[in-house]
Amino acid sequence: MIQSSIPNSSEAIRPPTVLFIEDSDEDFSAFMRLLAPMGFSYHLRHLWDGDEALDYLYGRGGYGDRDQNPLPSLVLLDLNLPGLDGREVLRILKEDIKLRRIPITILSTSSNPNDVDDCYQLGASGYLVKSMRLDRLRQTLETYFQYWLTVVRLPTLPES
Amino acid sequence: MIQSSIPNSSEAIRPPTVLFIEDSDEDFSAFMRLLAPMGFSYHLRHLWDGDEALDYLYGRGGYGDRDQNPLPSLVLLDLNLPGLDGREVLRILKEDIKLRRIPITILSTSSNPNDVDDCYQLGASGYLVKSMRLDRLRQTLETYFQYWLTVVRLPTLPES
Repeated sequence: MIQSSIPNSSEAIRPPTVLFIEDSDEDFSAFMRLLAPMGFSYHLRHLWDGDEALDYLYGRGGYGDRDQNPLPSLVLLDLNLPGLDGREVLRILKEDIKLRRIPITILSTSSNPNDVDDCYQLGASGYLVKSMRLDRLRQTLETYFQYWLTVVRLPTLPES
Repeated sequence: MIQSSIPNSSEAIRPPTVLFIEDSDEDFSAFMRLLAPMGFSYHLRHLWDGDEALDYLYGRGGYGDRDQNPLPSLVLLDLNLPGLDGREVLRILKEDIKLRRIPITILSTSSNPNDVDDCYQLGASGYLVKSMRLDRLRQTLETYFQYWLTVVRLPTLPES
């Protein structure tokens, strides 16, 4: 079972939310199939594009209720999204004084060093490549969820 | 053997540099004893305080020769340092347009959520707690060097 390293007592009752912004249903289904046997103890929230992600994070539209739509402890962000692009989402969130503390990890099919550099320049915490090879994708997700997230401390949630 | 995920061909010849900013010789020796059996393939550069770290990163003082003192692919930064504090080093580097893309992971004895929040707010990529328990410290370092760094893509080095 994956343990959260967040020491906040309210978080111990409610699992931390991971916001997963991914426009491909196929890719998201593959992630879920790979994650399921790992005993995933986060609350995974899937959104399909950048505009919807910003609506969620700013509590706009149908996302005003923070009990139903809690701010995430971290964001996994695809780069190539319909409408508002992942880089633009990253830029907006990292320029926002309230939301910037939420770590954003990029998950992209691109391994182009220019994309990697741009994302770190904009404030990404990490950059993972979505491999087309299922064994490599499994290794990446296992490393992220079963190893990295068990030792890294995450920030407390910004106040709504 | 730890493999670097940096695709740059010159990096394949020369192992990437990790800058380790840690004022405690005792802590650094403990890290090295724990890292040694892991088959560590990075070039680890140890500096003792924040002022020296900035001299190194800006190529000042005795650090002008970039062949001898290459820019790091990532920085591990202690928070409580003599002189210039780790938070201040973090702030300066993340406000620098050229150096900000270098990921900075905090490694601190403090597990105070305010410290964690402050560091993410300033742009830290991750926050690891230096446990006093050797088995936990080993797990943290193993996770970081043997798992996380094998899957995360790091930025190419800024031009000197």
